[in-house]
Formats: sequence, structure tokens, C-alpha cells
Amino acid sequence: MAESFGVQVLHGPNLNTLGVREPEIYGTTTLDEIDGMLRALGKEHGIDVQCFQSNHEGALIDRVQEARTWADAIVINPGGFTHTSVALRDALIASDLPVVEVHLSNVHAREAFRRHSYVSDIALGVICGFGATSYRLAFEAVRERLGA
Amino acid sequence: MAESFGVQVLHGPNLNTLGVREPEIYGTTTLDEIDGMLRALGKEHGIDVQCFQSNHEGALIDRVQEARTWADAIVINPGGFTHTSVALRDALIASDLPVVEVHLSNVHAREAFRRHSYVSDIALGVICGFGATSYRLAFEAVRERLGA
Amino acid sequence: MAESFGVQVLHGPNLNTLGVREPEIYGTTTLDEIDGMLRALGKEHGIDVQCFQSNHEGALIDRVQEARTWADAIVINPGGFTHTSVALRDALIASDLPVVEVHLSNVHAREAFRRHSYVSDIALGVICGFGATSYRLAFEAVRERLGA
Amino acid sequence: MAESFGVQVLHGPNLNTLGVREPEIYGTTTLDEIDGMLRALGKEHGIDVQCFQSNHEGALIDRVQEARTWADAIVINPGGFTHTSVALRDALIASDLPVVEVHLSNVHAREAFRRHSYVSDIALGVICGFGATSYRLAFEAVRERLGA
Amino acid sequence: MAESFGVQVLHGPNLNTLGVREPEIYGTTTLDEIDGMLRALGKEHGIDVQCFQSNHEGALIDRVQEARTWADAIVINPGGFTHTSVALRDALIASDLPVVEVHLSNVHAREAFRRHSYVSDIALGVICGFGATSYRLAFEAVRERLGA
Amino acid sequence: MAESFGVQVLHGPNLNTLGVREPEIYGTTTLDEIDGMLRALGKEHGIDVQCFQSNHEGALIDRVQEARTWADAIVINPGGFTHTSVALRDALIASDLPVVEVHLSNVHAREAFRRHSYVSDIALGVICGFGATSYRLAFEAVRERLGA
Amino acid sequence: MAESFGVQVLHGPNLNTLGVREPEIYGTTTLDEIDGMLRALGKEHGIDVQCFQSNHEGALIDRVQEARTWADAIVINPGGFTHTSVALRDALIASDLPVVEVHLSNVHAREAFRRHSYVSDIALGVICGFGATSYRLAFEAVRERLGA
Amino acid sequence: MAESFGVQVLHGPNLNTLGVREPEIYGTTTLDEIDGMLRALGKEHGIDVQCFQSNHEGALIDRVQEARTWADAIVINPGGFTHTSVALRDALIASDLPVVEVHLSNVHAREAFRRHSYVSDIALGVICGFGATSYRLAFEAVRERLGA
Amino acid sequence: MAESFGVQVLHGPNLNTLGVREPEIYGTTTLDEIDGMLRALGKEHGIDVQCFQSNHEGALIDRVQEARTWADAIVINPGGFTHTSVALRDALIASDLPVVEVHLSNVHAREAFRRHSYVSDIALGVICGFGATSYRLAFEAVRERLGA
Amino acid sequence: MAESFGVQVLHGPNLNTLGVREPEIYGTTTLDEIDGMLRALGKEHGIDVQCFQSNHEGALIDRVQEARTWADAIVINPGGFTHTSVALRDALIASDLPVVEVHLSNVHAREAFRRHSYVSDIALGVICGFGATSYRLAFEAVRERLGA
Amino acid sequence: MAESFGVQVLHGPNLNTLGVREPEIYGTTTLDEIDGMLRALGKEHGIDVQCFQSNHEGALIDRVQEARTWADAIVINPGGFTHTSVALRDALIASDLPVVEVHLSNVHAREAFRRHSYVSDIALGVICGFGATSYRLAFEAVRERLGA
Amino acid sequence: MAESFGVQVLHGPNLNTLGVREPEIYGTTTLDEIDGMLRALGKEHGIDVQCFQSNHEGALIDRVQEARTWADAIVINPGGFTHTSVALRDALIASDLPVVEVHLSNVHAREAFRRHSYVSDIALGVICGFGATSYRLAFEAVRERLGA
Repeated sequence: MAESFGVQVLHGPNLNTLGVREPEIYGTTTLDEIDGMLRALGKEHGIDVQCFQSNHEGALIDRVQEARTWADAIVINPGGFTHTSVALRDALIASDLPVVEVHLSNVHAREAFRRHSYVSDIALGVICGFGATSYRLAFEAVRERLGA
Repeated sequence: MAESFGVQVLHGPNLNTLGVREPEIYGTTTLDEIDGMLRALGKEHGIDVQCFQSNHEGALIDRVQEARTWADAIVINPGGFTHTSVALRDALIASDLPVVEVHLSNVHAREAFRRHSYVSDIALGVICGFGATSYRLAFEAVRERLGA
Repeated sequence: MAESFGVQVLHGPNLNTLGVREPEIYGTTTLDEIDGMLRALGKEHGIDVQCFQSNHEGALIDRVQEARTWADAIVINPGGFTHTSVALRDALIASDLPVVEVHLSNVHAREAFRRHSYVSDIALGVICGFGATSYRLAFEAVRERLGA
Repeated sequence: MAESFGVQVLHGPNLNTLGVREPEIYGTTTLDEIDGMLRALGKEHGIDVQCFQSNHEGALIDRVQEARTWADAIVINPGGFTHTSVALRDALIASDLPVVEVHLSNVHAREAFRRHSYVSDIALGVICGFGATSYRLAFEAVRERLGA
Repeated sequence: MAESFGVQVLHGPNLNTLGVREPEIYGTTTLDEIDGMLRALGKEHGIDVQCFQSNHEGALIDRVQEARTWADAIVINPGGFTHTSVALRDALIASDLPVVEVHLSNVHAREAFRRHSYVSDIALGVICGFGATSYRLAFEAVRERLGA
Repeated sequence: MAESFGVQVLHGPNLNTLGVREPEIYGTTTLDEIDGMLRALGKEHGIDVQCFQSNHEGALIDRVQEARTWADAIVINPGGFTHTSVALRDALIASDLPVVEVHLSNVHAREAFRRHSYVSDIALGVICGFGATSYRLAFEAVRERLGA
Repeated sequence: MAESFGVQVLHGPNLNTLGVREPEIYGTTTLDEIDGMLRALGKEHGIDVQCFQSNHEGALIDRVQEARTWADAIVINPGGFTHTSVALRDALIASDLPVVEVHLSNVHAREAFRRHSYVSDIALGVICGFGATSYRLAFEAVRERLGA
Repeated sequence: MAESFGVQVLHGPNLNTLGVREPEIYGTTTLDEIDGMLRALGKEHGIDVQCFQSNHEGALIDRVQEARTWADAIVINPGGFTHTSVALRDALIASDLPVVEVHLSNVHAREAFRRHSYVSDIALGVICGFGATSYRLAFEAVRERLGA
Repeated sequence: MAESFGVQVLHGPNLNTLGVREPEIYGTTTLDEIDGMLRALGKEHGIDVQCFQSNHEGALIDRVQEARTWADAIVINPGGFTHTSVALRDALIASDLPVVEVHLSNVHAREAFRRHSYVSDIALGVICGFGATSYRLAFEAVRERLGA
Repeated sequence: MAESFGVQVLHGPNLNTLGVREPEIYGTTTLDEIDGMLRALGKEHGIDVQCFQSNHEGALIDRVQEARTWADAIVINPGGFTHTSVALRDALIASDLPVVEVHLSNVHAREAFRRHSYVSDIALGVICGFGATSYRLAFEAVRERLGA
Repeated sequence: MAESFGVQVLHGPNLNTLGVREPEIYGTTTLDEIDGMLRALGKEHGIDVQCFQSNHEGALIDRVQEARTWADAIVINPGGFTHTSVALRDALIASDLPVVEVHLSNVHAREAFRRHSYVSDIALGVICGFGATSYRLAFEAVRERLGA
Repeated sequence: MAESFGVQVLHGPNLNTLGVREPEIYGTTTLDEIDGMLRALGKEHGIDVQCFQSNHEGALIDRVQEARTWADAIVINPGGFTHTSVALRDALIASDLPVVEVHLSNVHAREAFRRHSYVSDIALGVICGFGATSYRLAFEAVRERLGA
């Protein structure tokens, strides 16, 4: 099927260690497996899914700026930057793309500072707490939004 | 397909006016349509989906207590009670069932008091901002959780 | 005179005990007397005044939803729900009717928590501190607004 | 009719521009028209209504002190001083007169700092949100209080 | 022994599940057993003990209002309403009866929001943390107060 | 009856003036009378009750440390130290004994700072507001706990 | 005795009504009597005492600026401006004169907002709670400071 | 050059002492010198620059109201009123003119309360910290805005 | 002159080092010199002045309790206990004696936590910032109060 | 003209998209145009202006550290880092250079969190709200400061 | 080796129970063992190490005052007084000696109130979290500081 | 001696300028000297000490992730990231290694925002205030922990 839409999937700091890091919180699925799943889903629905992870706030911002030129939506798990990065927020606003915020764990059930997000109020919607499934649901939400 | 699981779907106050009330925020889909969609999805996957709406906090608590006897999960959009009902929170904790919190609108993008939820930190996960699709994603999350 | 407008008057919890409960704060007029006065005023100006009191938040919300179908304005003394009910607030917003918030006592001169209202910022206006007269002034404000 | 009561009406800073300043918030009625209406109402009920506006906090305090010698009540729209003047509050307390606080706009629906008033908790009652009608309702409340 | 005093015992939301719900926090005694114990104690000391549980805030308020006509004191475990119900507080104040607030668990050792009670400062006294014994101690306190 | 259990009763600062100091808040019973009552109750149930009052925080801590060697529970009215002493809290935690916190007056109905206690969240339970009866109820709670 | 020092005494808003206004808080001494006492004390110790009262913040600031040219110290009871006037604070700082802040009543025992002063931390010292005596003590403090 | 634009320059309380008052913070330039500089700049660019200083809040508000009739912009250093005057804010809003807020010192590097301004969020822009140069830059900003 | 009144002067922790400790804040006068001055003043006016210093909170409380039996007023510099001792506050309240709070330094001009006092709101008045003179002014205030 | 001074101009995250990103807030001028203008102004006044933009916090810190070796001042628009970067603040402090903080938009008129800046209190001054002109004014301020 | 320096080691309340009290937090080493280790280290480096523990705030303050006469530094574990004692803070400031604050446990990982210390900001440095080793490191820090 | 343990030493932003930057706060020792000292100490005790500094948050996170594969402990001075980086905190938690937090200066004695650390509560312990010695003490703490 021809790919007529593009989605940028962004993973913030420490998500590269997924499957190893604190499996009791984040599960044993690796980031590669998640990316593979998302790309497969994309292929199925004619959506070009590009995945990128970085521990560097600036690198993520660079990608958000580029997404503007080719993508129709952004799915982002900002990791620790969720709670601290106004710069990432500004980039997402400027991209003018619909943004879905994703978290593997239920951020509301952890340290108090995780309850605040610089992304949520500028996102289309937020999904958290379902492990790798959170990403799949985000893909669904984006697909529905794009009419793909 | 035989129904081997049960899911209680609960809608809080004012959700009965869905489709009429502030369509620019909540869309034009009615609650009956959402319930119909969820029951259909349930039938497809062998899940008995029971839906209930009330403007009465006590009536919702009664249902949560009953769910304990037959359901395997609760999907709840607590509406305005999200931000004010400790009693509903207590009922959900006591039910010992996995709970998915759902909101049609992105609560983070509205009044400041909507950012606090008495349900989120005791839920399995939270989904908000995708209109009627929020419910469908919640169903998916529950189905995956139940292995149905 | 033909009644060409409708006004729903709503009294929140504990207002049924008016005239008995803490007369040094609330005066000796009963709720029936207030309702009678409002209905008489309505008759005089061609306004159908319907009065309803409940200790049940859900019952008040039900009435607000119904008011949408016949009333042109709501006069409400939310009593204790003033400070705690987001659900009632949501119902009032959804009704799309002009709302006048009324209090018998001067809420600003009592416990600190009474200074916050979930209704005030979505109301047309607020009147408090004049005992039963507060309701009469609210009627006046509504009448002026409706051009009755 | 002989005037047996006196009421001092006080308008705080910027109210002299009424009818010109931000008509979408404050309406097109001028302060002179409001004062005229109040004096007419006073005449009708035997109440001597004196009106005074100033942008100077001290001038308003001077008038409050004088009111003690001839007036039976004060109707005040403290404007911006509502939120900042302890000195005006002190003068009102010291006057020992019943005070009705009035606002043209619904202060609860504007900036957060407008929710705090140094006058409300020492007033007899508060009326806000009904434009020029707010003053008329305040007059009614005072008249009832005075038994005029 | 002739019953010369009356005590209304009120249980708030979710207390009907006592003995089943989270026994590690609330113990295995059922509400019926507690009510039975309290009625037996009442009989012993000539006190008519009436017990009532509801998940509905309004139903509890109704009972508080009725208690005014026959009871000499109220023992109440407001459950989740402890922290959220101004309406229940208002009803208790209006009843003009001595109120003893009871909690099975030590509310101070749980979530931070449980530290605030809308009842404590208007109660005669507060007892928490002793499981079913909390109720027995409350009965003792009431009995002493009534001189029964 | 042989005394098989030991209970340390501790009274914080200013409680030695009981019966004299502010009788309208604390009643006319003296501390000696309370101690006598508790010792008598102890004798009746085979519990060795030792009472100690001090205005010195350090002296109270010393006693808590000693209690560890002979007592099975601590009943403490920390007086003013309730709100300020982390050191006393630490001693109570370290004693590893069940602690019942007692107050003569209803601390919730007084100055705001009295609502915070460094003891409550580490106590078994809290009783306040019943005057000297508070101590008797605390004894009951301890007795039940010890099975004495 | 030749007057070799100068002291500016400033009274803020509403102090002109002293002796009339709320005598149960402020006593029956008039401001003229206080000024007379201070001038007499000044004469006795060779200090030129100038007194000034105003309800106008700007008028007080003008006087503070002039004081710079002739006075050696300022005694000020800023009244309600204590809690709200940064401009007065700035004038006092700029005067480079030692300032003694005076209050008739004990500001700490009244409304919470009276606990904050924009003057205290830039003053030499503060005296409050002793009625007219507060001014005499302030004079003493200034005299000692000036070595007069 | 013909003057085709008008700019009202306003200086708040204590700025009349500029050059004398705390030169280590505010420099040695006097207010007259600043006004001269601004008038000269105005002449150069065809802008009628009117300067006014007052220690009286009301006098500044009066000028803001008048500016509406002849000026195209306001440059204001509200001095101490920056942090306390809602009335001045209201006047500036009502003037409907572009406002540039100016401070000689860097208000962010001083007392915490100076960080809050009632003017900043309704201003076109803010300039602080450059001494007399702050005014010149403000003039530049206004000139650019007016296209003068 | 016969001594007909008694005044207990209390110095809190670290005041025994006066004259040595931080002379730039507290001056070079020793506590003995202050006590001597106060006793001499007492002799002059027929007042028995007893002075006591302790670093022990409990020892100060003991003295406050004793003062009840012989003194007519208390002058207290609670030192560091000013900001932390509810127990001392309780003792002062219970003594039922007029209390004057004294500080050598201007507590408002130091660390933020020194702005809060547990004594001020229950004191007759407060004097701070005048070094040893603070005590002399306190003596004056007490003498006036006692009519000695 | 020989360049005798050096100024490092730093642009924080997302400023590279200027002219494209949210033109209704930031205008249509591109960053290259601003840099060109600043370099031209520099050439005119003998100031070597070096411009640098990055989305990477660390890259900006590196530049601040280098500036120490050649520049005489820093003009910085920290973008989103304004509100979150202590590290950038530390670098600016350590550079020991005068810093002018610049913002295109009026940060005071946007989200509440934009009111806090980690740079403002360590800067020479702050300019915000004038679009590209903000930079030109900052250049003026620096030039004046350097005497260039 | 001749002892040429003196160090006062102070242990606050409850540290006398070390090795017994909550070993999972504080380890099994006793205070005597720690004191022995410190004295041995002192002997080795010519430092007279004096150790003192008390549950009495006043006793610790007494020792701090004495230390001034013979010691060159203070190592203090203020225990529970860390968070509550301004008096101890004042004594340490007045001693004019370098102070090292020590904690056995990591205070940052426990209750929120343990994050605040009245000692830290006036100490030379702080060491926490290493059990008995914390004291040894503090000794090292002091030795280095003294050049012993 | 064979190196049997590994320790990753991490220095956050701006620490590369050590010895130059603000020597009055941080001393004149350079980072190279500190690293040399730590490596020498490591060699002495059979510990492989690797040192790394970066101004880039992402680069530090990368190193923390690598440390997991070879190091037994982390010593980190997070510099400005201490107060702002949740991402670094997450990396440290995920590394599952004991972490010692180090600061050259006493962070408690500086700006208020430096009192909060995202690392402290997940660290083994914290050492601050002793300049370069802080690192040496941290090494000691790690060595003891590792038993090296």
C-alpha cells in the first residue's frame, strides 16, 4: 500500500535502555521491538513511521523541526524531558502538527513532580500506563485523526 | 463467540448530554453511540460490556461495588467527579479491579483544576483528548490486559 | 398576564431547613416563603418561575439539564456545593443559560473555603449577603436581562 | 417626599470613563447616567443619595469619613482599589455604616487577582456582574435594609 | 432499661463493604457487626441507637436533618466525604447536635489529602485508627457527654 | 490481679497546670486526678500504668527511650510539642511501641498550626476533644490492643 | 532649651479619626493629644517635632522627601499603607533617615494580612500594641538614637 | 520638523529625587535631564513628548486618562506602584494606547516582591536595568512602533 | 519605695552570651548590665524585677508557670524559641499575665523565618530593633500598663 | 572603523525557525536578518558581533565559556532555556561579562511559567516585547555600556 | 603526638540509642564505637576530640557555647533538632567556629520535612547518608580545614 | 595493585572552568588536578577511576548508561543539572549503581533554588561544601562501600 502519511515517533532520554532498565516499571519489551511494531502498523495503513531516540534535548528538538517538512503527526514519549523542557514544548508548538504524548508507566502513580508535563496541554491527547501498548494506542489515535 | 470476560463502563455526570453539550469541545457523537460501539467491540472479542451513566455520585459508587461481583475491569469517565470525589476513588480501590480512566477532551488544556484527578494515580492508565476514540482505545487497553 | 419566559430557581443542600437552621446567619424566612415570593413576582412579570430544592447533587444536575428545554435563565443558590461541585458547574455551562448565583449570607465573611466558588466565574453575576432579599435582587437581575 | 435617609455612593478609580472605556466589558452607560438613576430612585423613596468619584484613594477615604456624619449606608464600587487598599477597608470599618460592594463586571470571570477583595468580608453584601443594574440592585438592598 | 436518649450513627460511602474491602487497612469486622455492637451497647445504657449507611451524600444529609427531631448526638464516619463535603458539614452544623467523627484507619498515615476534614473543626471530638474499636470509643464519648 | 502489661502515660508541657489553666478549654479536672483514674483502670485490668509530665522535651524523650525496656504501649499527650518536635517523633518511632496520641481539646477547632502533628502519622490512632475522657478512651484503645 | 534635632512624625490613613473610631481597639486618645504629647516631649529634650497626618499616600511620600532636608529621624504609623505601599517604603529608604515604625494596636493579633509590613525590614525598629504609649516609646527610642 | 505624534512619559513615586536618591542603584542623572533628553529626541523625530511625575497614584491615573485624548503611546516608569496598583493598570488598559514599561534598575535583581508587575502583562514591552538609557531605549521602541 | 508590683523578665537561648556574640548585630552591652538596668528601674518605680535566662525551653516554661503566683507582667525575649516554641506560647497564654515581647535586633530585617513569632499575637505588644533600649522601652510599657 | 570591542549574540532553542514559527507572536523577520542587522550595527560602531544559535543547551554553554576569551558583553535570547537552565545561568555568571537578556515577545503576557527567568537577576538588564527591535535595543544598551 | 587542635563532636536527640534503634536505617554501630573511632583518629592527628550526646536542646546549646573557649571546630549531628531548632542554629552562628553537619542516613530520601535544615546554610559543609562513615568523613573534612 | 573495581566520576556543566570561575566560591584547584588526585587514589586502592566532564546533559546521560557495563559506583557533581534534570535522575536510577552526589560549594548557603536536587533522594549520600576535598571524601565513601 502506498504510504500517504508520515508520523514521527520520538523517544526521549533513557528509553534506549528499555527492556533492561527497571523492568518492574517499564516491562521487558525493547525499544527496537516497539519501533518495529509501529513501523509494521504503519506499513499496514499506508503511514511512513520514522522512529528516533536521543538522550539529547537538542537532538529531539532538531527532529521536531524537521518533522514539520514531511510528517503529519508526532507521537512522543518525552521521558524525563516531559517535566523540564520548555524548549521541547516550544518546538512542538511551532511544528503545528498534532502531538500525542505517550508514557509507558502511569506517571500519576509515581513521584509528585511527574504529574506536571510541559507537553500535555499543547497535545491532542495523552496516553499513559499501558506499557508498550501505550504506543500502539497512540498510533491508533493518530491513524484515526489522519483518516488513514 | 462466548463472552468470557466482563467490563463495566461508567460515565459520570453530564455525559448523558453528549452530542448536544458543547460540541466544539466534546464532538457530536452521542453516549448511546459510544455505548453501542463498545458493546459491539465487546461482542467481537467475547467481552460482556455493561454501560451505565449517572449524575449521582452514589449511583456510580453502587455500580463500582457491584462490578466487583461480575466484571474483570472498569472503564470510567468520571466527568466532573474526577476532580472532587474521594468516595469514588475509594470505591475503585476497593473493587480491586484494573481501572482505565478516560476523558473525551484533553483535560490538561482546560481550567487548572481539571489537571488534578482523584482517579489517575490508582488507575492502570489514563487516556484523554481523543473524543469518542478515547473510549475505543480504553477498550483496546482493557482487552490487551485481559488477554481477550 | 401571559407567561412568556421561564426561570428555574434551584436551592442546594440544607436550604430546606431555612428559617430553622442558624437563624442568626440565615434569618427566619422559610424556603416556601421565598419560593412563594419569587412565583408571585414571576406572575406579575409574565415569568414562569419553577423552584426546586435538593440535598442531592445529582438531582440538581438533572434539573439543570431539564431547564435547558424550557427555561430562559437559572437562579441558583448552590449551598455547600458552591465550593465542591465541578459536576454542577459542568451542567450549568452545558445548559447555555444565563446563571445568577445567590447566597443568603455574605460568604466572604465566613470560613476561608467559602471564598471559592465553582460557579461564580461562569455566572452572569453574583449576589450575596442580603438574606431572602438576595433572591429578590436575583429575580430583578434576571428580569432585566430577559427584558421581561 | 421628605428625605429621611442618606446614602453615600462612591465610585473608585477609572469609573469616570464609564461608557467609553472597554464597553464590551462595562457597557455604554455613563457614570452620570448611573448617578442620575440613583438620585431619582432616592428621591422616590425619600433617600438623599450623594455620589462621588475619584481616582485618588485618599479622596475616597476622606468621603467615607465624612459619610459617618450624615449617611446611613454606603454603596461602593472600589474599582481597582478593591484588590489593594487596606486603608479604604479601614475607613469603611471605622465608619460603622452598612456597606454594599458593587461591581459592574463579574470580577470572578477575569484575572485571578480580581477574586480577592479587601472590602467583601466587611461588607453587608456584594453584587457583581450586572452592569449598571448592579448599582440599582445595590440601591434596592440598601433601601430594604434601611426600611425606606 | 427505658431508652431515654437517641444517637444517630452514620456511615459514609463504601463502608457497606467493610470486612471485604482492603482488610489489611480496615479489618474483617462487617458493618452489621459494628451496628449490632453499637445497638447492644445502646440497649445496655438506655440509648436508642439508629444506624444508617449510604453511598449517597444527599441521603446522609437527609438523615442528619431528621436526626435533629429525635437524636441527642451523632456519631459519623463520613468516609470519603470527610475530605470533600461542605454540604454534609453544613448539615451537621445546622443539626446543632454534638458530633463525634470516627475513622477506622489512621487517616494521618495515608494520602496527604486525608489529613484535611470538613468535619473535625465542628465536631466535639475525633477518634481514628482503632478499627471497629473506634466506634465503641465514640459511643463511650457520647454516653459520657449525654450522662447516660 | 497480677499486672502483666505496662503502659507509659506521658504528658507534655503545661499539662501540669491542668484544672487551673484555661478551664473553659481544658476543664477543671487536675492532672493528678487523671493519673489516678488511669492507674486505677490499670490495676483493674492488670496493667502497670506509669505517668510522667514534663515541660522539658528532652525529659520526655528520655522516658520514651526507657519505656522501650518495660512498657507495651505509650499514651501521649504531647501538648505544644505535638506541632514542633521531630525529636520526640523520632524517639516514639525508635521505641517500636504502639502509640496513642491524646488531646484534651479538639485541636482542629483552634489555631491553624495545631492541625499539624508530628506524631499522628506514626501513631496507632488519635483521640481528641473529650477532655479527661480522651485519656480514658485511649486507655481502652490500648487495653484492647494489648488484649488485657 | 535650644532645639538641635528634628523628628518628623507621620500618621497614615484614618488616624485622624483616632479617639472616635473603634475605641475598643484604638483607645479614646485623639491624634491631637498624641501630637501634643510628642511636641511637649520634644521641647523638653531639644527636639523639633513636626506632626502630619494624611489619608493620601502621595502626601505622606512628599513629606518623607521633605524630611530629608531638616529632620534627623522619622516616626511613622503607616496605618493601612503598612501592608500595601511599596512607594512609601521606597521614599523611606531614599530619605536615608532612621525610621521607627509604630502601631497603636498589636497588628499580629488581627487579620493575617496585617502581619506583613513593607516598612519593618527597612526600619530601625518596630513598636506595636501599646496604644498612645507606642508613640511615646518610639520617641524615647529616637531620642536615645540621636543622643538628645 | 512638525510634530505628528504624541507620547506621554510618566514617572511614578520618588522618581523626582532621581540623582540624589541611592545613586549606587539609580545613577546621578536627574529626572529633569532625562525629560530634557526625551523631549530633544522627540523634537528630532517629530514627536511631542510630555513628561509628568507624581507621588500620587490618582494624579498619574488622571494623566493616563487624559493621554487618551492626545497621545499615541505611553512610556511609564511606575516606580513603587508597579507592584501594587491595580487602578493604574486599569487606567492603562482603558487608555487603549501602547504602553512601554521602563525601570532604571534591574528589578529582577532586588527584593522578591519587585519581580511582580501589574503593568508588564498589559504592556507592549518592558525595559529595565540600564539606568537613564532605559528611557532612551523605550523612546526608540515607541518611535519604531509609531513609524516616526 | 515599697515594691507593689512584680515583673518577670525572661531571656531565651544564647542571650547569656550577649556582648560577646555578634556585637555588630546585638551590641556590646552584657545581659548582666541589662538586668541591672531593669532592676534599678524597678526599684525606682516600686516594681520587683526578677530576671532569668536559660537555653532550656522547659526551664523558661517552668518560670512562666511560677510567675503566675507572684508577677503582674512578663517581659520576654524568647530568642530562637520565638519562632519554634508552641509550648512556650501555651505557657504564656495560661499565665494570664500581660506579656511584652522584646528583641534586641530588628527581626524583620534578617532571615525570613524570623518574621514569624509564636508569641506576638498573644502578647500585649512587641518592641524590636533598639538593642538594650528595647528592654528599657518594654519596662516603660509594662510600668504604664500597671500604673506603677 | 577598527573593531575594538566584541559582543557575543546567542539565540536559544527554536529561534532558528524565526519568521516561520508562529508569526503572529514572533513576526516575519528571520534570524539571519536579525544577525545581519546586528553585524551591520557592530561594523558601524567598531564592535565585532558574533552570532550563534543552537537547540542544544550544552552548545550554548560552550559558547558562553569561549566568549570569556574575546568578548566584552553577551546579548542572549535564551528561548525556552530562560525558564529551565541553571547551567546556562552558571555559565553566564562565570563569564563575568555584562549580559543583556532579550525576548522577542512579551514573556509577561503569556503562560505563567514564562514569568520566571534564571537569567534576569544576573543580567545587566532585560528587554522584551518589541520583536526584532528588542535585539537592536539590546545592541544599543551594550554599546552605551561599552562606551563604543 | 601533642594535641594542638580541639574538636567538639555533638550528637543530638535519640543518637544514644544508635545500634539498637531502627538498624535498617542507621546500622548496628553504637555511638560509643563512633566516639571511640573519632577519638582514636584525633589522637593520631593531634586533635583533642570531645564527644557529647543529649536529648536536651538546651544542653547541646550549652556545649556549643563552651566550645567557643577551647575548640577549633564543631562536628554536629543535630538529629531531630536539625529541622526545628533556631536556638541551636543561633548558638552555632555565635560560636564563630567552622561547623560540619553530619547525618547517618540520607535525609533527602525520607519524610519531606527532613529536607529542611536550620544548620546547613550556616555550616561549612554537609555530609549525609554513609552511616558511621559520615562521621569519619566529617573528621577528615575538619582535619583538612584545620591543617592538622 | 590489580584494579578490581571501577568508579565513574562525572562532572556537570561549567566544572571545566574550575580554578578560573569564581575562585572565591570554588577555589583555585583545576578539574584536571581533581581528576589526577582521584585517579591516584584509585590506583592506590585498586580502583579504576574514569573521569568525564560535559556541558551537555545528554552526554552525561550517555556516560551513566555506559557505566552500567563496567563501573561499580558513580561519583557525580551534577552542577547546574542538579536542580533541573529529571532525565539525569532517571539515568542514575536505571544504572542501579550506588551514587554519591558531590558539590564543591555549600549549596544550602546560596540561592534558594539550589536547595532542591533531583539526585539527592536517589543517592547513597551527599557531600557538599568542602571544595576539592568534597571529591576526596566521596572517593572514601565509595571505597568503603565497595570494600576496596
